[in-house]
Amino acid sequence: MNWNDKFSLDAKAIQASEIRELLKILEDPSILSFAGGIPDPALFPMEEVARIRDRLEQNSAINRQSMQYSQTEGYQPLRNWVAKKFSEPNLGLTADNILITNGAQQSLTLLASAFIDAGTPIGVANPTYLGALQVFGTRRPNYISIETDEHGLIVESVKQAFEAGIKLLYTIPDFQNPGGMTIPEDRRVQIIKLAHEFDVIILEDTAYRELYYDIAPPPSFLTLESQYISANQWHNKGLVIQLGTASKTLMPALRVGWTIAPRVILDKLVLLKQANDLHSSTLNQIITYELSANLLEDHIEKLRSVYGKRRDALVDALHQYLPNCASFNQPKGGMFVWLTLPETLDARVLLEKALSVEKIAFVPGAAFFANGGGENTLRLSFTTCNEEDIRDGMRRLSSLIQQEFLQLAP
Amino acid sequence: MNWNDKFSLDAKAIQASEIRELLKILEDPSILSFAGGIPDPALFPMEEVARIRDRLEQNSAINRQSMQYSQTEGYQPLRNWVAKKFSEPNLGLTADNILITNGAQQSLTLLASAFIDAGTPIGVANPTYLGALQVFGTRRPNYISIETDEHGLIVESVKQAFEAGIKLLYTIPDFQNPGGMTIPEDRRVQIIKLAHEFDVIILEDTAYRELYYDIAPPPSFLTLESQYISANQWHNKGLVIQLGTASKTLMPALRVGWTIAPRVILDKLVLLKQANDLHSSTLNQIITYELSANLLEDHIEKLRSVYGKRRDALVDALHQYLPNCASFNQPKGGMFVWLTLPETLDARVLLEKALSVEKIAFVPGAAFFANGGGENTLRLSFTTCNEEDIRDGMRRLSSLIQQEFLQLAP
Repeated sequence: MNWNDKFSLDAKAIQASEIRELLKILEDPSILSFAGGIPDPALFPMEEVARIRDRLEQNSAINRQSMQYSQTEGYQPLRNWVAKKFSEPNLGLTADNILITNGAQQSLTLLASAFIDAGTPIGVANPTYLGALQVFGTRRPNYISIETDEHGLIVESVKQAFEAGIKLLYTIPDFQNPGGMTIPEDRRVQIIKLAHEFDVIILEDTAYRELYYDIAPPPSFLTLESQYISANQWHNKGLVIQLGTASKTLMPALRVGWTIAPRVILDKLVLLKQANDLHSSTLNQIITYELSANLLEDHIEKLRSVYGKRRDALVDALHQYLPNCASFNQPKGGMFVWLTLPETLDARVLLEKALSVEKIAFVPGAAFFANGGGENTLRLSFTTCNEEDIRDGMRRLSSLIQQEFLQLAP
Repeated sequence: MNWNDKFSLDAKAIQASEIRELLKILEDPSILSFAGGIPDPALFPMEEVARIRDRLEQNSAINRQSMQYSQTEGYQPLRNWVAKKFSEPNLGLTADNILITNGAQQSLTLLASAFIDAGTPIGVANPTYLGALQVFGTRRPNYISIETDEHGLIVESVKQAFEAGIKLLYTIPDFQNPGGMTIPEDRRVQIIKLAHEFDVIILEDTAYRELYYDIAPPPSFLTLESQYISANQWHNKGLVIQLGTASKTLMPALRVGWTIAPRVILDKLVLLKQANDLHSSTLNQIITYELSANLLEDHIEKLRSVYGKRRDALVDALHQYLPNCASFNQPKGGMFVWLTLPETLDARVLLEKALSVEKIAFVPGAAFFANGGGENTLRLSFTTCNEEDIRDGMRRLSSLIQQEFLQLAP
């Protein structure tokens, strides 16, 4: 039977990720991986999780309730915490503006379902988060790529996309995945003004925002919009919807994220979430709330210290070893360094050699481009390796790049 | 701003559930509720969960890994367990046929995305699970309703739907939600033959299958199909996709379910799941696996004993008190009794009176009908109330029905 004939148009449009297949080799523990955009499990606050579970088990009623069906919107104390944390004098968030989801990925799923029809023009950065392209791709949008430089989205390119009629713009303004760029405040303000001129929704993904290693990033799009439009008018006129997650600051397998949106949007997202999977794991929401309320700031300080040193180690090693034919950015936070190879090199070919010869992994950049390109780019993550491995890995990778470049030179 | 103009066609088609609004009153603890299709939290195996957590915390590496990103397909031991449990001599399931999801609801989400385009004709029982109508509804299918009697799907009505060109049939063959009916083996076999004649996919939802209080239900559609087609040909020719869940036998907020499908389908569902939310909570999958491997059968025996007595109490009370103008089924398992009022009564009006006068809740039946009808039907759940409350509640509800009937009599 040809099952492929039976799939929906949306499902037919989805293809297996070539990268995903390549990176299955990562289960081999002898590989030194700079591939995954994942936190270091050695830093997970497991002792505090154990204490939260102990406390929960001492209260039989709440403990049992944590395993029962619960409301789609999410665990009320967590919604209150998110509302309070991200509220602003001009914004006035309440729990009614907060939906708890299974990580930012499910927020994207619900938002894609809420706003994207087949053919809907949407704007994404070149490059952008692969997982966003995957989920938007299940709705078959018309991608309009927006160019970036070392400061993220280029305003003129954003304006062109708005003029081309995009309905929404997806952006990761802080320490972007995969490029590491941070959009400066003046660009953010210009993009908000243009969004209101052209009536374009902005989906602001803040996954990496708290992970800064030098200075805090500029105010978020959400905060800046609340200042741009009249006080408390975001609830009626706001175009910025903000996505957050506990995956990078706490632990990914909690599968807890949130969406902050004006009430009319949020009510629709709740209906979509209810249809999607009824509600998120109550236990994981309780753990997320307790961790957030009690130790988040101290924990993030620790992450900044450890990841910051690893960022320095990777950047320093590239300064020292990377041949002149290649270049890279210097991110002020997040998890990623973006590397540009000479145009003659294909990062996918380089990955195959890096895996087989050096047992080093990274992610080739092409998959982060909605409309093709980027074959000579790659993403390096610095969060899971120690500094010695980072220096050693970058030395060997740099040497491989140099060899490959010389071999292909005319 | 009129946000409603901005929603996608799919999102515009979703409306808030009137029932959901009515039932928000359930948070009032003075209400005696026969509404929710939910297990009794007093029966949750919390002590065993605590032991599993203790063991997990003693193994630091696995404990940390339980909070890290993990593979989309699911926790391997759980996939192996599902494959082994549901395999058959003619079927030969392996973990490659199993995808772990956030409960059966997310399985439905992924299957709807895989097979339904706007306007795709799909077959659903009259009545059927409201949550399935909600998730299919987000894809805007063309619902073809299939009539039922006390034995579930009527084969002639199924055949008419197949002749009308439906692409898939969604069915809960055992102790159906909401009707309580169980499809006999001969009907199942006839439906499988017809499905192969007309090339129609069968989505078999087994949520209540293990909760039998008299005798075990007939073999599943999956088992019967594996006998109907040549041995081990399900992998190439199978039309039955089976959905299972731990929500009814263990605990809902684990949010763990699974889909069993031929490999080509499963691979597509994995891509859709990856786009949807990357993966399900690892911790909850570990807990589900440990509970399933170690205590599931004993635990289900306990549920059968407790829920069986409650089923008996509800059926006995209705035999004793329900006026002749109304009728009900006698389910052999599951969670629900289906009640048919005289045609002059509207169950939504009755619910308002039951809530305000008697502080009793149930679910009006109309929401379970894809294409309208059923206004004089309602669903009673017997799993969360004790036997005394059940008898008292049915006595008062019966009395209210009698009063309402007499008031409206000509």
